[in-house]
Amino acid sequence: MCELLGMECNVPTDIVFSFTGLRLRGGKTGPHGDGWGLAFYEGRAARVFLEPAPAARSPLASFLGEHPIKTMLAVGHVRRRTRGKTTLANTHPFARELWGRTWVFAHNGTLRRVRRRRLGRFRPIGQTDSEHAFCCLLARLDRRFAGYPRRPSDLWEAVADIGAELGADGTFNFLLGDGRHLYARCSTKLWYIIRKAPFGVAQLADEDVRIDFSRVTTARDRVAIVATAPLTHNETWTQGRPGDLWVFDRGTLVATLTPARAGSSAPSRRGSPAPPR
Amino acid sequence: MCELLGMECNVPTDIVFSFTGLRLRGGKTGPHGDGWGLAFYEGRAARVFLEPAPAARSPLASFLGEHPIKTMLAVGHVRRRTRGKTTLANTHPFARELWGRTWVFAHNGTLRRVRRRRLGRFRPIGQTDSEHAFCCLLARLDRRFAGYPRRPSDLWEAVADIGAELGADGTFNFLLGDGRHLYARCSTKLWYIIRKAPFGVAQLADEDVRIDFSRVTTARDRVAIVATAPLTHNETWTQGRPGDLWVFDRGTLVATLTPARAGSSAPSRRGSPAPPR
Repeated sequence: MCELLGMECNVPTDIVFSFTGLRLRGGKTGPHGDGWGLAFYEGRAARVFLEPAPAARSPLASFLGEHPIKTMLAVGHVRRRTRGKTTLANTHPFARELWGRTWVFAHNGTLRRVRRRRLGRFRPIGQTDSEHAFCCLLARLDRRFAGYPRRPSDLWEAVADIGAELGADGTFNFLLGDGRHLYARCSTKLWYIIRKAPFGVAQLADEDVRIDFSRVTTARDRVAIVATAPLTHNETWTQGRPGDLWVFDRGTLVATLTPARAGSSAPSRRGSPAPPR
Repeated sequence: MCELLGMECNVPTDIVFSFTGLRLRGGKTGPHGDGWGLAFYEGRAARVFLEPAPAARSPLASFLGEHPIKTMLAVGHVRRRTRGKTTLANTHPFARELWGRTWVFAHNGTLRRVRRRRLGRFRPIGQTDSEHAFCCLLARLDRRFAGYPRRPSDLWEAVADIGAELGADGTFNFLLGDGRHLYARCSTKLWYIIRKAPFGVAQLADEDVRIDFSRVTTARDRVAIVATAPLTHNETWTQGRPGDLWVFDRGTLVATLTPARAGSSAPSRRGSPAPPR
């Protein structure tokens, strides 16, 4: 299994504090020592740092902590392998281009039968069930829409739908980014928090590190953080319900979608759509 | 314009010495200060480090110099923009998945009319003519072959062909990697060198840095380096002829293809195919 970390904000923000917690679980406070990755968006493009080695002891991960890259959308992952060897090709997050934007994807869980599913134009480079699922997901989106949908909520419903369909095969907690939204699906465990004014002091759960967000933010900043388990122990995190897909836009949870069943095309939705970015 | 750097070897090799020369041209000894990128293959996957900022002053580029990543195939680029803003999306090398492997591409030159060409399933994320050309190239390969061709030389000829066709629009020096070969097309300027036993001392042209390769190699190592301009001044580099496509495999120049004219399907070929890797 693995741990996920996502961040989505209304101003460029550095993810160092949260990533510090995550990377400790990559071989130190947690057993996820088979690789790590961190994707940073700049508009529709993302750069992805990947390493098939423990994050906790990685000089590159340390470098990113010392030279923060500010972004509105980031997806991170530390891996404890269940399927597929410890190689670069099997390291999350995976990335593909669809509709002229980079999509990145990270998975926690196992989908034992997903590799029986037919692929479309996207092919896995590695051997993981996760990358296979990502390829299926993008192919289904590509079949359903000619391009990025004009109504973002159509896309959200499609992601929720496909998540439910593929998730019926096993455990399918995932983070998906498209440069505009962060999609976070809870299958068994996923938590989020929105940090906004008034900002306070947060204390990492994994190490004696604390940060006073009020000193590094402005009153209008909003930062959504999603993680497999709460990263801080003095803040209130919200736990996901199995089957829910959260959609974050500009640091706001704009929708929670709960498909009625696998393959349903009419998921129920709570929350309201955000203006296009 | 920009500068290209490619490396293809028969043993995992670090590219630090050559990259040191290249990055100095990214804002110090050369004017290419609008971004840089370096892709490292591990099998069919590649990780790509990108930064829309001068390489010569980049902490990340320094980090890569201090923490070498050994690879059999690398593609690097420093950018001086002619088309498209200084953004991550416009930073070379570009990467896409085709046939279950990562392809990376870096371009030196300008193809003024390439954006009139119709795209297939690959869409540009940024605004450069270079990424548009890369998308066209991959779409044409995808149309011509159902998967990675059994006879690699069929693929080499296709790349030479498409290179000639797109290159008819302007200046199209490029490097292309598919995890197995390095393809290097000379439109106006490109040079290569094969380093092999007996290894000697090389001296960078851009700074007072030298390396004694005999101390870091074995007798069977072969390393091909391709660059826009020779990176050392005490070695013998071979200059490309306009229109030639070089194919490197395991540190050997396995073919030089010269399409008779744009769109020709029967390029002449010198050299012999290498065994599949």
